[in-house]
Amino acid sequence: MGIKFIASGGITTPRGFHAGATCAGIKTKDKSDLAILFSEAPCVATAMFTTNRVKAAPVLLCQQRLRDGKAAAVVVNSGCANACTGKQGLADAAETAELAAEAIGAPAEDVLVASTGVIGPCLPMERLRAGIKQIVLSRDGGHELARAIMTTDTVPKEAAVGIDGSNLIIGGVAKGSGMIHPDLATLLCFLTTDASVDLDFLRLALRKAVEVSFNMISIDGDTSPNDMVLIMANGLAGNGPIATGSQQADAFQQALNQLCTHLAKSIARDGEGATKLIEVKVNGAPTLAEARLVARTVVSSPLVKSAVHGNDPNWGRVMAVLGRSGVEVEEAKVDIYLDDICVARAGCAVPFDEKAAVKALDKSEVAIVLNLNLGEATATAWGCDLSEEYVTINSQYTT
Amino acid sequence: MGIKFIASGGITTPRGFHAGATCAGIKTKDKSDLAILFSEAPCVATAMFTTNRVKAAPVLLCQQRLRDGKAAAVVVNSGCANACTGKQGLADAAETAELAAEAIGAPAEDVLVASTGVIGPCLPMERLRAGIKQIVLSRDGGHELARAIMTTDTVPKEAAVGIDGSNLIIGGVAKGSGMIHPDLATLLCFLTTDASVDLDFLRLALRKAVEVSFNMISIDGDTSPNDMVLIMANGLAGNGPIATGSQQADAFQQALNQLCTHLAKSIARDGEGATKLIEVKVNGAPTLAEARLVARTVVSSPLVKSAVHGNDPNWGRVMAVLGRSGVEVEEAKVDIYLDDICVARAGCAVPFDEKAAVKALDKSEVAIVLNLNLGEATATAWGCDLSEEYVTINSQYTT
Repeated sequence: MGIKFIASGGITTPRGFHAGATCAGIKTKDKSDLAILFSEAPCVATAMFTTNRVKAAPVLLCQQRLRDGKAAAVVVNSGCANACTGKQGLADAAETAELAAEAIGAPAEDVLVASTGVIGPCLPMERLRAGIKQIVLSRDGGHELARAIMTTDTVPKEAAVGIDGSNLIIGGVAKGSGMIHPDLATLLCFLTTDASVDLDFLRLALRKAVEVSFNMISIDGDTSPNDMVLIMANGLAGNGPIATGSQQADAFQQALNQLCTHLAKSIARDGEGATKLIEVKVNGAPTLAEARLVARTVVSSPLVKSAVHGNDPNWGRVMAVLGRSGVEVEEAKVDIYLDDICVARAGCAVPFDEKAAVKALDKSEVAIVLNLNLGEATATAWGCDLSEEYVTINSQYTT
Repeated sequence: MGIKFIASGGITTPRGFHAGATCAGIKTKDKSDLAILFSEAPCVATAMFTTNRVKAAPVLLCQQRLRDGKAAAVVVNSGCANACTGKQGLADAAETAELAAEAIGAPAEDVLVASTGVIGPCLPMERLRAGIKQIVLSRDGGHELARAIMTTDTVPKEAAVGIDGSNLIIGGVAKGSGMIHPDLATLLCFLTTDASVDLDFLRLALRKAVEVSFNMISIDGDTSPNDMVLIMANGLAGNGPIATGSQQADAFQQALNQLCTHLAKSIARDGEGATKLIEVKVNGAPTLAEARLVARTVVSSPLVKSAVHGNDPNWGRVMAVLGRSGVEVEEAKVDIYLDDICVARAGCAVPFDEKAAVKALDKSEVAIVLNLNLGEATATAWGCDLSEEYVTINSQYTT
């Protein structure tokens, strides 16, 4: 039961999904900033949203529209988050859905809306109205959408996986974070599949996949007002519906986990100013919750990120972060590794080859491994290094 | 009942306190790195320590020695934190105290130890043994100690206050943070007073003062393995002992609060790479705990710090941080100000003079004011901007 990544795959790789994008002028100049994703067959759909108490208008709209577990299309813009925009923002989000519904011939209540960009300003509706009419949908348009949702991302993030021994495909696209603290950025991810999937199972499967992927590039449960991970299943593969306990349930879950992890790592790797992907693996934790908390806290530490940026094997910072992460720690049991080089054992320094440690850090993917030696639970989190460029980018965003 | 800052004051301004420092060679080259503070009369003393589960050896030693509420001296080094050093670290801390006790002629059990610097390595005891003998104590030596405890601090932080209508003096010295997330750095603060103070009152007063000062430049209760705020009261002013309810209790508390706030702001202002002090004031919170949490979360946000660095009036980031801070928020009630310029009202954008807003940010002290309009509680937190230099400094610390 293997899972295979499909070359050049994306959200329109599964059967029956169409997409397209345009330059509506929401972002400056000739940047693509408005896109539509559409399924020719009605979809079972579910999403996970930001836990931020300040929720953007499109999030509020989608939460309402997804109660019935159905969707046909998503219209998405970058350049303006439509967050902190009050009643005008809600009206604008609803109008955007309506305009897209007209353009594609779907009922407005099945059209979802997503936005990413600067918080505060209202959507430039004149430009949106004109822009939506320009969008041409195609079966290969997923790549266009992947570019249209980028903000400070430097590369589009998309992929598709096929499940061996079946004809089922799951496609996905995400936009970064684009920030060192991904949870403060807008994370948008749209997943599509031609599998026929039972709604209850789909909800559970999405939650499980997000837990091991997107939630492991976050810090403190921090999320932007716009975060959204959406999955739409149109059933055009013609399989018997996948439900809990059915034959293909495990394979579908595995495929979804791998796809989401792939996209999450792409986001971490492309963090603003990032030069490296950092993977923090925690072993030997008493519980899964503690393993996850430690992994996320270490990978989010500005001091650890700065040390990795400078190839500095300063393991004492990892110990200090572990100590304040909120989990029980027995200092005298902790081992720390950079790649496979042990830099601390039983909570204390051990002699290690400093040149080799610097070399282990001077790579595009850096692995930090902690063993708490208290139990059996493990977890992995991903992030990126903190560079001078991060500050440069973030001190000049709106002005 | 006024409180006056004393020109060029410090920890040896109160009667009977002596200090001195030397270059023991713990830090590189000819930097002062070892110091002693000594009171000629025995002191009532108490301290607050790191809440990090990984505690440095000197912290464990002090916790034990302060149980009786008595102290005569502190020996402190920079350049090595003596943290994550196991049993050897504890033995080294105890020996350091013993050497200092011999040098000054005090019982070893009344000598406290503090360390700050790199986590992991053991203290270079040969150098400490030689160094301690070189220290010459004087009534004006507080300034020397202030310099000896600096790590990445760029200026010493010391002050003394006198209480009007009395002869009581409180002196203080602190070392930074020196980091953008001060809680991850070592915060060391020593406070001295010639007032006679009841131990129970002193413990309570210190806790209250730390809550409104040093704890308001921290983030999540994060603290380094070495953090310590110590107060020693030697009673040489000859006042009747200050206790809860006594005539001078309020004045003493006010003086202590002002001194601690002054030192805390000095630390924030001198954060690594910092170019500005940021003050975040939260008004209209339902409870004090919520006001404090919001103030600390906003002032710790890398995105807010970066925006302030670049003079970018990006208030949407403040709203996003408020939303994920963990407190109840009614988005439609929130007002945000930069200095006295309203940039968001009732949760939404309002037109404002962008040039004036940029100017309000382009100052050495920047004020961000949030009104939640939900209650009466207020709190203030301090931090600094995030500059490219922070990353440069922290990517080259140990190597």
